[in-house]
Amino acid sequence: MKDLERQLEQSWITNAEAWTQSVREKQIESRKLVTDQAVIQEVARHRPVKVLDVGCGEGWLVRALAEKGMEVVGIDGSNELIKQAQESGGGIFYTVNYTDLCNNPKQVGDQFDAIVCNFSILSEVIVPLLQALSGLLSKQGVLIIHTLHPFAVTEKERYEDGWRKENFQGMGEGYQAEMPWYFRTMSSWLNDLHHAGLRLVHCKEPIHPQTGKPLSLLLTAQKAADHEN
Amino acid sequence: MKDLERQLEQSWITNAEAWTQSVREKQIESRKLVTDQAVIQEVARHRPVKVLDVGCGEGWLVRALAEKGMEVVGIDGSNELIKQAQESGGGIFYTVNYTDLCNNPKQVGDQFDAIVCNFSILSEVIVPLLQALSGLLSKQGVLIIHTLHPFAVTEKERYEDGWRKENFQGMGEGYQAEMPWYFRTMSSWLNDLHHAGLRLVHCKEPIHPQTGKPLSLLLTAQKAADHEN
Repeated sequence: MKDLERQLEQSWITNAEAWTQSVREKQIESRKLVTDQAVIQEVARHRPVKVLDVGCGEGWLVRALAEKGMEVVGIDGSNELIKQAQESGGGIFYTVNYTDLCNNPKQVGDQFDAIVCNFSILSEVIVPLLQALSGLLSKQGVLIIHTLHPFAVTEKERYEDGWRKENFQGMGEGYQAEMPWYFRTMSSWLNDLHHAGLRLVHCKEPIHPQTGKPLSLLLTAQKAADHEN
Repeated sequence: MKDLERQLEQSWITNAEAWTQSVREKQIESRKLVTDQAVIQEVARHRPVKVLDVGCGEGWLVRALAEKGMEVVGIDGSNELIKQAQESGGGIFYTVNYTDLCNNPKQVGDQFDAIVCNFSILSEVIVPLLQALSGLLSKQGVLIIHTLHPFAVTEKERYEDGWRKENFQGMGEGYQAEMPWYFRTMSSWLNDLHHAGLRLVHCKEPIHPQTGKPLSLLLTAQKAADHEN
């Protein structure tokens, strides 16, 4: 595993408490404003019975979906975050990192009507993860990826895939580690979905009500019927 | 037909001569720099025998593809541009506007290995056109759409679908009519492809070599095997 991937994984252990506080005290403006509701709506629209929340963190989304009557499993690589999630309940939670998940996907269950990755796909190589998740979908099941919108590249940056650093500024206090994360262009997302044997069935770009600019990207995909890989 | 659609169609008749000059004298910087080669490469990559160029204008792309040994048909709604194209040769050219094409797609041929729309999908309602083109593809045929990149929204504009105006500034002289055109967000493009029964198989975002920002968007799609509409 590359150093940056290891740092990324470690950051969610180191920052578990600060992150839990940020989420529970709603300190992340864009989430409060738009993106939390956007992902809940996109999942609910498909009326799933069984849902898997991949990279569930302290579990807010599991709880929100469980309140709507769904049966939800949450997984995360950070045992510290999973402990927070288990204390609050609402679903079944397992500590499973993405490498373990790829090695044995069905340890978390199977035949999910919806699998959601809410700002939780942050690695460089993602096709094996997408393939593993695809294998856990029910026949008409949907994989919903919610991520930073690729427009979120500053004036000075080139628009290209690459590692960036998140320092959690403006998201609350107590963060002790930067989080490396991998920025992907729109084409990178779309091509990786295709290479994983998934077919995009819906795309949504939630907009900031004041600025009119996109705040996030929601990609909803299904297993491609004709995929031969 | 809405007024703006009529103005859009009419602009290519009024501006036919100015446009022909702009293209032939390579007066459009982004095309010379990146996008002309990008679309040629994307078509050539699929090694098509029969190609349809939809909205071919004065025919430069037909000629470029014909030089690579492809059998190319070019169609355009502007009879003035088709005359220019016919004079220069390289392929078979027909004057057919998109309404006529949708009413009777096979008048332009059938079983195309590649259909290319190079900056030529500018209307508000495009699903019927995409469906008509999908019906003209050979079994493994690809529909290639090359368009303005949706990032090309200015600071002041909201990121949302809507009519805009092109005044051809910086593209040469002699333009006598503004061209209304319909801006589409990324999700709008992707959802319309899906609704037309097409599956995205490749996405490319050609980049300006200096600024590092995307200059255009290339979407390559095939008929979806499981489409039931």
